[in-house]
Amino acid sequence: MEVEQILHMNKGVGDTSYAMNSTVQNTIISLSKATTREAIVKTVCSTWTDSMGIADLGCSSGPNTLLVISDILDTVCATTRRLERPSPELKVYLNDLYTNDFNNIFASLPGFYRKRRQDRASETGRCFIFGAPGSFYGPLFPANSLHFVHSSSSLHWLSQVPAGLEEEGRVVNKGKIYISESSPGRVLEAYGRQFHNDFTVFLKSRSREMVKGGRMVLSLIGRDSSDPTTPQSCYQWELLAQALLSLASQGLIEEQKVDEFDVPYYAPFMGELKSAVEKEGSFVVEREEVCEIDWDGGDAAVGGTVVSRGERVARTVRAVVESLLESQFGSHVTDKVFQVYTQLVDQHLSHTSAKYINLIVTLVKHA
Amino acid sequence: MEVEQILHMNKGVGDTSYAMNSTVQNTIISLSKATTREAIVKTVCSTWTDSMGIADLGCSSGPNTLLVISDILDTVCATTRRLERPSPELKVYLNDLYTNDFNNIFASLPGFYRKRRQDRASETGRCFIFGAPGSFYGPLFPANSLHFVHSSSSLHWLSQVPAGLEEEGRVVNKGKIYISESSPGRVLEAYGRQFHNDFTVFLKSRSREMVKGGRMVLSLIGRDSSDPTTPQSCYQWELLAQALLSLASQGLIEEQKVDEFDVPYYAPFMGELKSAVEKEGSFVVEREEVCEIDWDGGDAAVGGTVVSRGERVARTVRAVVESLLESQFGSHVTDKVFQVYTQLVDQHLSHTSAKYINLIVTLVKHA
Repeated sequence: MEVEQILHMNKGVGDTSYAMNSTVQNTIISLSKATTREAIVKTVCSTWTDSMGIADLGCSSGPNTLLVISDILDTVCATTRRLERPSPELKVYLNDLYTNDFNNIFASLPGFYRKRRQDRASETGRCFIFGAPGSFYGPLFPANSLHFVHSSSSLHWLSQVPAGLEEEGRVVNKGKIYISESSPGRVLEAYGRQFHNDFTVFLKSRSREMVKGGRMVLSLIGRDSSDPTTPQSCYQWELLAQALLSLASQGLIEEQKVDEFDVPYYAPFMGELKSAVEKEGSFVVEREEVCEIDWDGGDAAVGGTVVSRGERVARTVRAVVESLLESQFGSHVTDKVFQVYTQLVDQHLSHTSAKYINLIVTLVKHA
Repeated sequence: MEVEQILHMNKGVGDTSYAMNSTVQNTIISLSKATTREAIVKTVCSTWTDSMGIADLGCSSGPNTLLVISDILDTVCATTRRLERPSPELKVYLNDLYTNDFNNIFASLPGFYRKRRQDRASETGRCFIFGAPGSFYGPLFPANSLHFVHSSSSLHWLSQVPAGLEEEGRVVNKGKIYISESSPGRVLEAYGRQFHNDFTVFLKSRSREMVKGGRMVLSLIGRDSSDPTTPQSCYQWELLAQALLSLASQGLIEEQKVDEFDVPYYAPFMGELKSAVEKEGSFVVEREEVCEIDWDGGDAAVGGTVVSRGERVARTVRAVVESLLESQFGSHVTDKVFQVYTQLVDQHLSHTSAKYINLIVTLVKHA
């Protein structure tokens, strides 16, 4: 599976689009707002420049994209004003994979610029917004061009499905699509290794691109236990695998295709993340946080309609993983998969509360 | 009409898309290839940098977009190699209006990068391609960030329909959609003034963004007579106006809507262009050319099917102006407009040959 050419949040603004189903990600952005602001203030105070480079990595599309940027720009401008310095020119790079819906973001820019002009008149410096398509697991920007990097709900996506999930041509994670309590050790190792390698490449790439004293605020789904099989970090995939197997038992998809399917995703433990940062050596951890978020983001309505919690969760997950499922199973079964998934989530939530764990770290480029 | 939010070449890769109907623009790009290469060689020879900024303004989407970029990158690399200098990092900005089909361009980038790696192995420096949405009649890039600017088939589009095409609430260019032989003087003046103002803003904006010694190669539709009513520069619009009036006479659209519709387009004389450059003062004209191109680009087949010349011309024009027509007349009449237009063009071409005039200038930033 060519992840970088397939994975994208659902496009457009329809019922199943990411734009209409990204409340959880919005909640996650809110959780890291204070951390983001603090990191920007420190960066602006410690680096003096007349041209500041800012990147949002994994920006997706929809309302969240420009919300993040707006808050970052406001913070930069408020900080330079407080320091009685002129506002720098701001170069903002919106990054996501090649098939992200950049058209949707760009179409909303005229309104974004107009609103900023109205709200702030002459207070802000010039701001240039660019699209920077490509994988953040590799070079994306010129050397020493970035002062601040933000990434939310993106770094839990791997560059590829881990190698090592087959043994002598046989799949070793039968009936599962991610790490599960019953997964053999080599599955856990394969996923952990892929995350470590990917995250190291990410750090090396950014290290070249960021100025000394620049900061990154990285927010991603993780876990608060060192055990990668903890249900907290696996159970949403466990239920999706059950939904797929249910379709296979009805003959709607091949069971073998489910066996062969694994998600390019990993929910790391904070310790794994910090150990990769230490080993790579270009950044130091300035701040770390672990938070919990309800599977449905705690929001009761979807587009004005009250729906079950299971349906809210299913819509959120669908908007994110539909492109992956389609490339493996075809588009004709997607509706059915998420009908079954909705029921399974509703059953699960009827007897337990389910939370994602979100990790937030601020890294400073020191060398 | 908010040109910068409406005007875009037809999206996607279908029968009426710009991607499938841009042979004329491709021919025009070929015509300026030698000039473009010469300008790049001179720029690379006269400016030494480890990070070179390149912009294509009005890049559109489809095969032409990356063809231009590929040739520019090859020329930069060949030149630095000949000078025995290391290849600079290349920052390439693809600019077009907010509703351009950037998704289409970005989706073809993985193949573009792969091919470059295969063809040239380690010969080329790092290259970063960004989308830069917005109007080139205003700031688009940070100060002193560009070394080379290319623009083909774009600068004949104005930032707006000229002011002054109404007089005391009455339209003064009745039954026409552009300058015509029967247009009153104030129409000619309004169009000429709008071009001069727009082009001056364009030059001022680029002047701030370009380094000293940087070059622009600008290629646009124009005319080779100082008379703006010369059929050579107006007749394609004359025929489109006739097609619209024919629909109005059948009651399919309101005649008043045709009267009120004027295209935000101007085909300048080389003298007008050079006089604006001189007055603005930041650039000098290094080279100028005037060429002729057949209305149909001289290509006999469209997607493998042999069609009439009228149809080829109609497809080319439709791919470019459909967004403007739709915003004025609705989408339901577009097919019909271009059926009639095809007939009119075929009739016209049966007794005369019709050519566009294309202007190419190389400008050097001197101050």
